[in-house]
Amino acid sequence: MNPLRVVVWGENIHEQQDAAVAAIYPQGMHGAIAEGIRGFLPAAEVSTATLQEPEHGLSAERLATTDVLTWWGHRGHAEVSDEVAERVQRRVLEGMGLIVLHSGHYSKIFKRLMGTTCSLTWRVAGERERLWVCNPGHPIAEGIDRNFELPQEETYGEPFVVPTPDEQVFISWFEGGEVFRSGCCWRRGNGRIFYFQPGHEIYPTYFDRNIRRVIANAVAWARPHGRWVDSCPNAKISPERARLSSPGV
Amino acid sequence: MNPLRVVVWGENIHEQQDAAVAAIYPQGMHGAIAEGIRGFLPAAEVSTATLQEPEHGLSAERLATTDVLTWWGHRGHAEVSDEVAERVQRRVLEGMGLIVLHSGHYSKIFKRLMGTTCSLTWRVAGERERLWVCNPGHPIAEGIDRNFELPQEETYGEPFVVPTPDEQVFISWFEGGEVFRSGCCWRRGNGRIFYFQPGHEIYPTYFDRNIRRVIANAVAWARPHGRWVDSCPNAKISPERARLSSPGV
Amino acid sequence: MNPLRVVVWGENIHEQQDAAVAAIYPQGMHGAIAEGIRGFLPAAEVSTATLQEPEHGLSAERLATTDVLTWWGHRGHAEVSDEVAERVQRRVLEGMGLIVLHSGHYSKIFKRLMGTTCSLTWRVAGERERLWVCNPGHPIAEGIDRNFELPQEETYGEPFVVPTPDEQVFISWFEGGEVFRSGCCWRRGNGRIFYFQPGHEIYPTYFDRNIRRVIANAVAWARPHGRWVDSCPNAKISPERARLSSPGV
Amino acid sequence: MNPLRVVVWGENIHEQQDAAVAAIYPQGMHGAIAEGIRGFLPAAEVSTATLQEPEHGLSAERLATTDVLTWWGHRGHAEVSDEVAERVQRRVLEGMGLIVLHSGHYSKIFKRLMGTTCSLTWRVAGERERLWVCNPGHPIAEGIDRNFELPQEETYGEPFVVPTPDEQVFISWFEGGEVFRSGCCWRRGNGRIFYFQPGHEIYPTYFDRNIRRVIANAVAWARPHGRWVDSCPNAKISPERARLSSPGV
Repeated sequence: MNPLRVVVWGENIHEQQDAAVAAIYPQGMHGAIAEGIRGFLPAAEVSTATLQEPEHGLSAERLATTDVLTWWGHRGHAEVSDEVAERVQRRVLEGMGLIVLHSGHYSKIFKRLMGTTCSLTWRVAGERERLWVCNPGHPIAEGIDRNFELPQEETYGEPFVVPTPDEQVFISWFEGGEVFRSGCCWRRGNGRIFYFQPGHEIYPTYFDRNIRRVIANAVAWARPHGRWVDSCPNAKISPERARLSSPGV
Repeated sequence: MNPLRVVVWGENIHEQQDAAVAAIYPQGMHGAIAEGIRGFLPAAEVSTATLQEPEHGLSAERLATTDVLTWWGHRGHAEVSDEVAERVQRRVLEGMGLIVLHSGHYSKIFKRLMGTTCSLTWRVAGERERLWVCNPGHPIAEGIDRNFELPQEETYGEPFVVPTPDEQVFISWFEGGEVFRSGCCWRRGNGRIFYFQPGHEIYPTYFDRNIRRVIANAVAWARPHGRWVDSCPNAKISPERARLSSPGV
Repeated sequence: MNPLRVVVWGENIHEQQDAAVAAIYPQGMHGAIAEGIRGFLPAAEVSTATLQEPEHGLSAERLATTDVLTWWGHRGHAEVSDEVAERVQRRVLEGMGLIVLHSGHYSKIFKRLMGTTCSLTWRVAGERERLWVCNPGHPIAEGIDRNFELPQEETYGEPFVVPTPDEQVFISWFEGGEVFRSGCCWRRGNGRIFYFQPGHEIYPTYFDRNIRRVIANAVAWARPHGRWVDSCPNAKISPERARLSSPGV
Repeated sequence: MNPLRVVVWGENIHEQQDAAVAAIYPQGMHGAIAEGIRGFLPAAEVSTATLQEPEHGLSAERLATTDVLTWWGHRGHAEVSDEVAERVQRRVLEGMGLIVLHSGHYSKIFKRLMGTTCSLTWRVAGERERLWVCNPGHPIAEGIDRNFELPQEETYGEPFVVPTPDEQVFISWFEGGEVFRSGCCWRRGNGRIFYFQPGHEIYPTYFDRNIRRVIANAVAWARPHGRWVDSCPNAKISPERARLSSPGV
């Protein structure tokens, strides 16, 4: 098997505009996410891309050789060009894996793939979050205990307006009284999609060992299993069959 | 439309053996559940059946004229005859609705329909439970606010070993730190199934107005939409088609 | 219950440009579809709308009072404004039913809701189509025999690039050797969606009694079950809860 | 990775009782199926087991070291002991893959896992079958063209009374006019299940190269991704949490 080619995409805005975020993530949030994946998947080729690069760092050429893309965005959702969003969607349907992180629930690419509003309830109150594993045998939960905690995270709550997930891997408990489907799998076309809720910019979530393990597991799980460039072909009838549809039969 | 015919099944053991339960539910848990359904669905014909009756009160004749069955069982799961469990399963597949309550997750009938262990994690610690609505537009959540609370319930926790629900209506938060998929829908054959978690025998849960509303909503949602007595027919080929499969064509 | 308010949307291009189609559908395809629904659902309020009207006949006001929308489009998919497509999507997520017909598989609205390419294989060869019922107890199949035939239809074939349907109601057999998932259900947000494959413009499909019955059944099935205008609320923490997240606890 | 351990189970009755079947399958149907898997998965350890062996060749010890089990049964469904059926079910829920072949749709193990009748329509008329790939990128369809044909097979038809498959890989066309969901995936607990329809005993189906490829692909796809021996644990509350549920809070 060739090495898994992973692109970690970050919008890279909070880190530039907010000193508190820059202090936590001196290499950017994408830097920390990429580091975590490299730690658990040393054979993978992990690179990063950001909103500010030409084509947001996601040229057709680069996407064509990407196996799994991770996506963190928030303030800059609207700045992502429709063309790039559509390009990413097309690649997912062909087989590229996609890991959508935290506020990426409102990204163009996630909303396009889900077909729903992807809304949720939220609150920034520094609450403790406990993530429960719903299927201990799932590859994305490998190496994770029955649950694990983050001392402080943004609270996300139901209703989470997405199609019923194909598989529910995590559900979170928040000390303020909310629950949230924090780890969800879907297949779309030939691609695998995983949404993972933790990762508010003002907390050091992407340095947490469990979080890094889950993201790396998800990247491995979402690797392509074939490529399918679909079209809408006009299928010619075989001469043998054509007889059948002729008048008189 | 004919009136909806509802049978509320209760195993009726705790009420007979435990004075504390009898004090809370002097008419039996099934009595309280039936009363709640009648309150919200006054046009329905609601009757009860218990484990101790001949055929557990679920003769073939009675089931044949039942539209929706609710099921509460716990200590007596093993006492339910395989014959009756199979009969109920067959009726669900034909179109009868089934509402499985609380510890009914381990009933023969629910395990048969799910095909999985239906295990979960549990603790009796009188913890507060908060039920969140995952789809405010779902008929089972009609009239229910964004969430509601029960002051004390048995804590159920993930993993809940069931097939991915078709629709997730409720997820619960427990003050001790657990979460649970407390309201789940499935279709099997032509029947609709709803599992609803609250209802430990030592709490007055089935007198709670929200709980009663949800159960009544579920009963209305699970009403049959047609009847389908499936078989495994040997389908004769039409003479016209038979030509096609004869040698030489 | 108030009468069901149904809008039958037709792009109304083939009927204007192609004499053969105009001859089959002198009132337009939308006219024939509307007539069929009225025949089986006499209490419904059925009106039509076309691409050529202002806002394609789908103003915000009209959509707000529409319970179920049916959609036939083909040549004019690109002429539907993004604004109207988004408006329809929003209404479906709120609870409006949507019935997508035939070449509507490539409409903006269907692709938005599915999140996939919605491609398929096709051939116009006047082949016989036989539609099989996959669940005889499903409300959309009510009154339909085990299968029914259309003497000539456009052949659609797999792969049909959509998310796995929640329920499979019909699968079609074509005499030229293709199969197709011709009747599929999905829920998205609070809305119900049914895709139904028959209806190529050069055949009198929408006069067929079985086809009319299925579409009317689907309209009844897709009626709203509540309305849910979702938002993305910032949920304030209660003072009681706030204690919990303060340092020191 | 350790070599994949595959057990090919055959009821081995037709081969013993019917000379025509014995002539086609001199090593038994299980022998031909095992040979096919070995051909495409040379690194796998493939063995066979039959109904007539003690415990049907499926002792607890053997199952505990089996990664994927394939199942062909027909005349002897009732002879499979409930104990072995339950043991197989338990192993699937722990993570063992299960490939159910042809008339195995009516086996105890498949019906237990599906929870439905698993009925279908059938006809033995030597009709041509054409299997269509519904997702060309699915690992089970790897190496398979858009469709492939079997010159003669038993005709299976809808309705196929199973829960909606998680993924539809194949749908079949039969020359006599039937369609059938011939390749279906489900997850149950931690196990993957694939049902594959071809394989009537009087045709040499299990020597067909495409059939062998699909079965080998399915075996590889269904390999365990972890093991999960679930229980129903009483989860003790932590002392810290216990405070929360004490009266007065």
